[in-house]
Amino acid sequence: MSDLAIELKTDTGKCMYQQIYEYIRNEIRTGKLQRDEKLPSTRSLAEYLQVARSTVDSAYSQLLAEGYIQSKPCRGYFVCGMEELVDLSQPFSLPEERGSRKAAASDIRKEEKLIENEIEYDFSPHAISMKNFPFSTWKRITREILVDANSEMFALGDARGDYELRATICRYLHSARGVNCEPEQIIIGAGNDYLLMLLEKILGRHVPIAMENPTYKRAYRVFQSFAYEIEALPMDKNGISVKALEQSNARVAYIMPSHQYPTGVVMPIGRRMELLKWAEQKEDRYLIEDDYDSEFRYKGKPIPALQASDRAGKVIYIGTFSKSIAPAIRVGYMVLPMPLMEKYRQSCGFYASTVSRIDQRILNEFIKDGYFERYLNKMRKIYREKHDFLLEQLKDLERDFVLSGENAGLHVLLTSKKKIPEKDLIRSAAAKKIRIYGLSDAMVGVPCENEKYENTILLGYGALSGEEISRGVGLLKEAWKEYLT
Amino acid sequence: MSDLAIELKTDTGKCMYQQIYEYIRNEIRTGKLQRDEKLPSTRSLAEYLQVARSTVDSAYSQLLAEGYIQSKPCRGYFVCGMEELVDLSQPFSLPEERGSRKAAASDIRKEEKLIENEIEYDFSPHAISMKNFPFSTWKRITREILVDANSEMFALGDARGDYELRATICRYLHSARGVNCEPEQIIIGAGNDYLLMLLEKILGRHVPIAMENPTYKRAYRVFQSFAYEIEALPMDKNGISVKALEQSNARVAYIMPSHQYPTGVVMPIGRRMELLKWAEQKEDRYLIEDDYDSEFRYKGKPIPALQASDRAGKVIYIGTFSKSIAPAIRVGYMVLPMPLMEKYRQSCGFYASTVSRIDQRILNEFIKDGYFERYLNKMRKIYREKHDFLLEQLKDLERDFVLSGENAGLHVLLTSKKKIPEKDLIRSAAAKKIRIYGLSDAMVGVPCENEKYENTILLGYGALSGEEISRGVGLLKEAWKEYLT
Repeated sequence: MSDLAIELKTDTGKCMYQQIYEYIRNEIRTGKLQRDEKLPSTRSLAEYLQVARSTVDSAYSQLLAEGYIQSKPCRGYFVCGMEELVDLSQPFSLPEERGSRKAAASDIRKEEKLIENEIEYDFSPHAISMKNFPFSTWKRITREILVDANSEMFALGDARGDYELRATICRYLHSARGVNCEPEQIIIGAGNDYLLMLLEKILGRHVPIAMENPTYKRAYRVFQSFAYEIEALPMDKNGISVKALEQSNARVAYIMPSHQYPTGVVMPIGRRMELLKWAEQKEDRYLIEDDYDSEFRYKGKPIPALQASDRAGKVIYIGTFSKSIAPAIRVGYMVLPMPLMEKYRQSCGFYASTVSRIDQRILNEFIKDGYFERYLNKMRKIYREKHDFLLEQLKDLERDFVLSGENAGLHVLLTSKKKIPEKDLIRSAAAKKIRIYGLSDAMVGVPCENEKYENTILLGYGALSGEEISRGVGLLKEAWKEYLT
Repeated sequence: MSDLAIELKTDTGKCMYQQIYEYIRNEIRTGKLQRDEKLPSTRSLAEYLQVARSTVDSAYSQLLAEGYIQSKPCRGYFVCGMEELVDLSQPFSLPEERGSRKAAASDIRKEEKLIENEIEYDFSPHAISMKNFPFSTWKRITREILVDANSEMFALGDARGDYELRATICRYLHSARGVNCEPEQIIIGAGNDYLLMLLEKILGRHVPIAMENPTYKRAYRVFQSFAYEIEALPMDKNGISVKALEQSNARVAYIMPSHQYPTGVVMPIGRRMELLKWAEQKEDRYLIEDDYDSEFRYKGKPIPALQASDRAGKVIYIGTFSKSIAPAIRVGYMVLPMPLMEKYRQSCGFYASTVSRIDQRILNEFIKDGYFERYLNKMRKIYREKHDFLLEQLKDLERDFVLSGENAGLHVLLTSKKKIPEKDLIRSAAAKKIRIYGLSDAMVGVPCENEKYENTILLGYGALSGEEISRGVGLLKEAWKEYLT
């Protein structure tokens, strides 16, 4: 089958696998590839396109994962019918019940025309730049560690992670974030989802948990998968409403005080103290502080973590190297307050560590030898430049939009003063091959009254160059012409 | 404090950290180090002993983890009182309630004299040999992969693991174990504990689960931590009793058909078919097949996995590289039957992968390029030689003991014909500095009637050299002189 005449472009910066995946996905969505149609084998398509077979494998794998195609043993890959399609690429719409499959498929049909065939500039708030990562240093450290690698390093280490790395993280958290802890309180795990899974074991089942609304949907979905009773509480300009928290059933609150996702709110000390006070009122109340992107702050002094103000052992601090190093590092850490250490030991202290000792050792050297700090400083500078440049580009949009969430993190927010619906903003941007993100994506539970969330979009800039930011914003202005005064 | 006069030996093969840890532990257990006594700082002890500071750190970390010492902020490390001691080094006795702390402490006192100060030969059934691991190949692959490493490899990959590695594992499982599956059904995760955590999300809560008795205690503890209702069912010479299974409430059974741990029973095809039939009787019944050490079989043809006989999508297959490569690899895999794929997607398909892409790539090359198979063949030969040599050494013990569980895996069992209690066998061995393991350690739930479990010990030989096996068994015979005819 040679009629998958995919034109691979080398100048878009989009990798081959992505181009193949998007091409086939669109062919299926638009009905050009029909149900039960057989796709070419990965080998023949790879030969035809003159790419590595693994590239085609990856594209097919993605299509399989998202349910566009299926594989039949010994026969090959086949297109799924539309009624079989469940759009798993929409990260936040888990089908709640089997009946929703058809609805999802018809949604896809409806949105077909909205779906950008080719996105040129993606303002994803989750993307980071790896261009300046000191790969050569990382490789050198790896090499050096492997030279010394012996059977001991291939043995199973401490369940919480190797002591040395915990001590290094402990020192880093103390100096960079003011976190007070001992290495014993730190648990290293393969990513935030896993750390939250441990936390489920520690906190127990049926925990009523409060979240800021809007919030980080990934954490929301993880708590949903625990069947936790989630109370999505409104926010004001200082963060989560403590009044609402007090009126709720929640005994745990998941918050992002340093730079709330997605609103960018930095919680002032007063609100922090109120939250700590709330937690101190009952023995089993805790605050989960997700300090996901605290490394990046561009104005004023760094703001210490909430954990730094915790005197009563109420804050569970969670951090990650996903933003500050790379998502694929798969190393996050959790600092448990002393009162939870015994529960940890009893409920899941025996679960084997999820991070290999070699990876732990590499990361430890990278931090200990100062490379992490140097890289952070560099990235802070680079992100600040991007940030400042973006704000500059957005200046004349401020007649019609309110800018917020700036000064930290890797995204800003634009709220339409004219109350142009978020959907219209996104759709017209997509027509110009620009991908932007709606704030309402991050809303959970019952829709909040605050209607600003319906007219707000997020612009992430972490992975974009100055050139791309400039061109992207230029196109955005063209796209929004009719909405501007 | 210079009175920790630890004599570090370089000729025992025991690493420094272990010697320091054991020394201090014994000083505490025997009361030579008293409650609230301050330990020397890691720096000063390291200087005194002329070892790396990280070595002392590791020893202290272990003591902290096990509750022998505690760290006080800015003050240092202090010995815990005996009533604070919870022996976490005993892997299978989780304190069920706080009240059990004192009991645990007094148990420690009671067993004090039994505790070997220095073990010379450890017949651990869990230890493996890493001496022949092709470290240089592993290092070379790592170097090569790092040369090509780019930002894509540092991006977050598929939640189930990279397609290429899943495809490689799929091919390996098919050829080596007869497992029938597609790469889409494979989920790669950081170790068995983590994979079982995913399985909890897939199977749901309050699942009544049957386990063989005795069984692999680690899995038992993980299921316990899920609050699963565990039915520990008796075994006969062919494996778990299907009659007992049918009479139980269980809807899932966790079994090790290839080489049951610890009994070594290899489940014959008839029993396998009965189990599959049991599972097929109800839609939500499943079998979890833990194929933990199937790579090592010394007599006759390899026996395919139970999954290979599964026609109805009833077997959840779990495997690991912990035994076949190294525990620190932190890569296991789970093959889900098709009927569970949708549940996986809904309940936890969005959890981010716990294995870094670089590690996945290294492992993939190691397997794909044939090194894994070559290493397995080598280890199979080495373990067979150790196994045969051990059996030879045990020959004259067979007058008084029944040998079983041979021909596969990394341990054998000895059952005393004279019904000498397991405890006496272990104690007298310990007096000769030999560590052996009792079968009753692996018993769960209510004690089984089958009294052979009280007179059986396990001898693991994976990590021992021929010389060590010979000397160890020699000492064992001396130790057991009074029990032999």
